[in-house]
Amino acid sequence: MDCVPCFVRQALEAVRMVTKDRLKQEKVLREVLSVLSKTSFNGPPTEIAHVVHGIVKKVADNPDPYREVKKKSNRMALELYPELKKMVQRSQNRLLTAVKLAIAGNIIDYGPSSKFDVNKTIEEVLTQDLEINDFQRFEQVLRNAKNVIYLGDNAGEIVFDRVLLEEMPDKKVTFFVRAEPILNDATVEDAREVGIDKLADIMKISVDHEGMNRNSEVFANFLRQADMVISKGQGNYEALSDRKAGVFFLLKVKCPAVAKHIGAHVGSTVLKFEDKT
Amino acid sequence: MDCVPCFVRQALEAVRMVTKDRLKQEKVLREVLSVLSKTSFNGPPTEIAHVVHGIVKKVADNPDPYREVKKKSNRMALELYPELKKMVQRSQNRLLTAVKLAIAGNIIDYGPSSKFDVNKTIEEVLTQDLEINDFQRFEQVLRNAKNVIYLGDNAGEIVFDRVLLEEMPDKKVTFFVRAEPILNDATVEDAREVGIDKLADIMKISVDHEGMNRNSEVFANFLRQADMVISKGQGNYEALSDRKAGVFFLLKVKCPAVAKHIGAHVGSTVLKFEDKT
Repeated sequence: MDCVPCFVRQALEAVRMVTKDRLKQEKVLREVLSVLSKTSFNGPPTEIAHVVHGIVKKVADNPDPYREVKKKSNRMALELYPELKKMVQRSQNRLLTAVKLAIAGNIIDYGPSSKFDVNKTIEEVLTQDLEINDFQRFEQVLRNAKNVIYLGDNAGEIVFDRVLLEEMPDKKVTFFVRAEPILNDATVEDAREVGIDKLADIMKISVDHEGMNRNSEVFANFLRQADMVISKGQGNYEALSDRKAGVFFLLKVKCPAVAKHIGAHVGSTVLKFEDKT
Repeated sequence: MDCVPCFVRQALEAVRMVTKDRLKQEKVLREVLSVLSKTSFNGPPTEIAHVVHGIVKKVADNPDPYREVKKKSNRMALELYPELKKMVQRSQNRLLTAVKLAIAGNIIDYGPSSKFDVNKTIEEVLTQDLEINDFQRFEQVLRNAKNVIYLGDNAGEIVFDRVLLEEMPDKKVTFFVRAEPILNDATVEDAREVGIDKLADIMKISVDHEGMNRNSEVFANFLRQADMVISKGQGNYEALSDRKAGVFFLLKVKCPAVAKHIGAHVGSTVLKFEDKT
């Protein structure tokens, strides 16, 4: 229920990105309200998001309303990239700095709020402690891992993920992005735009119930066979946190619902390991 | 349309104040979504708010969901009262300080967001300039006024209004509160709780289309006959700003919709005079 007001806002923001036609905007808003009034609130929020953004795509007749926003985020983050690399090079603990930057990059998200400050977030993450900090375990598991699964989150943010991937050159990484555009989540196009495809195999995950979705057996098998699973962002956390799959969750906590579930404050930075048992 | 996500959040917050029954909470949420999907978005937001909070009252079977919140706000503000008086007494310009404090008090509002910091707002308002500042005109009109109409806004905030009223002891003030409880807007009960009734005549304004509402001829007559009209908060601004009624609007700007209309930033403090012509 906590997510419902946020979905209504997202729908309005999304349709305004692609059309100035007030009637179309109003049509999306009314249809979203009507559908939400009948939707079950028991599923994961990501499933409801899929329905809501499906309405935007249909009414606005645009399969990817956040396309421009994503391109802009990638460009902005690529401009930051040389500076991010310097931060890692100058730091006492390269891996920790790269991990922290990857978490900071998670602020680039048009779901919980369309207002965020990337530079401020970078500064905060480098000067403050993680509120949940399983970095020691992260370092140890990574040292012994050969196959790493990395579940990406947003466009722009994936440049920060690239910086972290470059600190694990000896690993075989499979990087997951979205099969279908939703919100500003990274797709294959974004991964290529920022050069992730040169560092990792790209795989697509679907939110639809066909193909490989996060609940499918084929995806569960992928997770089981990996030596390490790194997951970015609230969406992946919501989908996987109760699965006992042995996952390292790297995220900015952005809303009260996730804050309560993960046990950290809104605005905090988190590296949380959820074990298999 | 901008107000719709906010109304959904308000409904959820309001019903949670009065019942822990998840089914009732969900019933309110679904009914609000369904009604909003069919409501016209052309009227003033205050009218939609009336419909939305009417659903909460009906389903939760509680005519005043914010009763406890309002009592708490009054108590909290009364505890601050001696300190507010000192701020006025110590200041170089008593009237300006009292006006600024009255605007700061407008932060006590459970509509736009249920999170706010009163002490921080007081500090900001006293150290910063008003973003729109018609104080000179305010002072001048007040000097020559005998009859003043003061349109109050929220519980708790009215203690700050009391401080301003005490700086105009020679005026005949009519202080308007809500006839029916809605959100944390002040009612007659609140005005008495904080002692406004000893400084001004209390009158009730209705949001219903019967009785004296803000669109009625009898209310328009009241405004016309007053030498000065002081209006607090976004709700009164939304209802009166296009009426050319010669009103001094004192408010914290709390949402993008009002910010755009009034021409000031979200978070800013404003004293704006809208003339009769």
